[in-house]
Amino acid sequence: MQQKMTLDQMHSFIDEVFPQVRGKFQVLDLAPMTASVRMHVDAADLRPGGTVSGPAMFALADVAFYIATLAMIGPKALTVTTSCNINFMRKPAPGDLLAKARILKLGRSLSVGDVELFSKDSEKPVAHASLTYSIPPK
Amino acid sequence: MQQKMTLDQMHSFIDEVFPQVRGKFQVLDLAPMTASVRMHVDAADLRPGGTVSGPAMFALADVAFYIATLAMIGPKALTVTTSCNINFMRKPAPGDLLAKARILKLGRSLSVGDVELFSKDSEKPVAHASLTYSIPPK
Amino acid sequence: MQQKMTLDQMHSFIDEVFPQVRGKFQVLDLAPMTASVRMHVDAADLRPGGTVSGPAMFALADVAFYIATLAMIGPKALTVTTSCNINFMRKPAPGDLLAKARILKLGRSLSVGDVELFSKDSEKPVAHASLTYSIPPK
Amino acid sequence: MQQKMTLDQMHSFIDEVFPQVRGKFQVLDLAPMTASVRMHVDAADLRPGGTVSGPAMFALADVAFYIATLAMIGPKALTVTTSCNINFMRKPAPGDLLAKARILKLGRSLSVGDVELFSKDSEKPVAHASLTYSIPPK
Repeated sequence: MQQKMTLDQMHSFIDEVFPQVRGKFQVLDLAPMTASVRMHVDAADLRPGGTVSGPAMFALADVAFYIATLAMIGPKALTVTTSCNINFMRKPAPGDLLAKARILKLGRSLSVGDVELFSKDSEKPVAHASLTYSIPPK
Repeated sequence: MQQKMTLDQMHSFIDEVFPQVRGKFQVLDLAPMTASVRMHVDAADLRPGGTVSGPAMFALADVAFYIATLAMIGPKALTVTTSCNINFMRKPAPGDLLAKARILKLGRSLSVGDVELFSKDSEKPVAHASLTYSIPPK
Repeated sequence: MQQKMTLDQMHSFIDEVFPQVRGKFQVLDLAPMTASVRMHVDAADLRPGGTVSGPAMFALADVAFYIATLAMIGPKALTVTTSCNINFMRKPAPGDLLAKARILKLGRSLSVGDVELFSKDSEKPVAHASLTYSIPPK
Repeated sequence: MQQKMTLDQMHSFIDEVFPQVRGKFQVLDLAPMTASVRMHVDAADLRPGGTVSGPAMFALADVAFYIATLAMIGPKALTVTTSCNINFMRKPAPGDLLAKARILKLGRSLSVGDVELFSKDSEKPVAHASLTYSIPPK
């Protein structure tokens, strides 16, 4: 199964439906059933001690899995998160974060998979999330 | 077991450690093992279709459980989320959200519980989250 | 919304579709959107140290939420678990366990809610689970 | 970091601490931070329609992650599950199941990771679980 959107199409789509986060997320790579996404971390994303906040990490996991799913099914803006389980494992460095999203099952009505989050320049994940998205009927 | 912080102490503490979200969260009620928190929803929190975004709901659940826990253990800023499972059940109305947090187990090193999120003026929850916080050693 | 099955109907149904666990689970109470279920714990359910095993607790949470859901929608055996998040909070005593299941959203295709598990004669929950069941189309 | 137990040591240990499931689980492979485990599925594990039950899949995910963790830290029987999130994605065939467990973070007090479950002879996972185990202090 091949993806239905290119990197450029995805960036245009994200800018259009989420104008409030324009420039926040950069899609690094799209391949069948996977996506890599970088989040620009700024002062509003930081917590006491200089680490990245939990909600900011959740936002990246959520967007990365949304992008992996839309790349496979095409631009359906109303695809929505139905559940997310996230484990925070290491304190991230106070800089940009990378997400690697992987779809484990793509059905007609649900997309299920997981996302690993990394601090730039680190090989060990800072967080791991399992997500389910609901896909609107045609 | 009684709480160790009053509403006023909690508001001062939250303003101090999270200056970037000043005015965003209002603690409505603190009681032993529970807290009620209101989130002011603005344009940056909305999604296509006028609903509140998943990351905004996650942020409220996370803050509400943090507040419920700190009220019991006192102001330890470095108490951190170790895991969160959130189920999104209904599309929230595009306005403020309320959270009711409940601690189910308060141990020396972990606080475990759940949070229900509601749209203002609605009795049915829009989301339900289970959270675990790690409490720093004395 | 009223439940569609009585205690007797539920017991007959469970015995019929799960003959291998006959006598294992006793439905104590059914009310709109809730169910209370008791699990008979035997030697096969115990772990080193005399506590009840995680899989046995999972089985009770799963059955209790299934029963709460079927009571509302009627006997549809093919209703299946799509996800479960369970937090183990206290070591159960080596005896029967009680479950209190609560439906938070009952849609056409999904039932979402949570379950608290208790050791007999204890007020503090030993585990808390959030579950989603998929309901087969008519 | 190398594992501290061989396949033979692990089988002996499992037989000793879980005599009630002797012969149920076979460890296929141990490597640093990972383990592969096969579960013998019998009639008691099946559900209406000939599929493997949710509690049986949970039991396999739980055991596989326990084995992956003990292989790294040595035989500490009182290592216990603190949380598990499991997504059921496909109906398993009515035969043996395989689990691939992966540790994402091994700390002093917690082991965090995930497990993919497969039906024999299938490449697509039937379920995916995220688990956290608590490691007893020395």
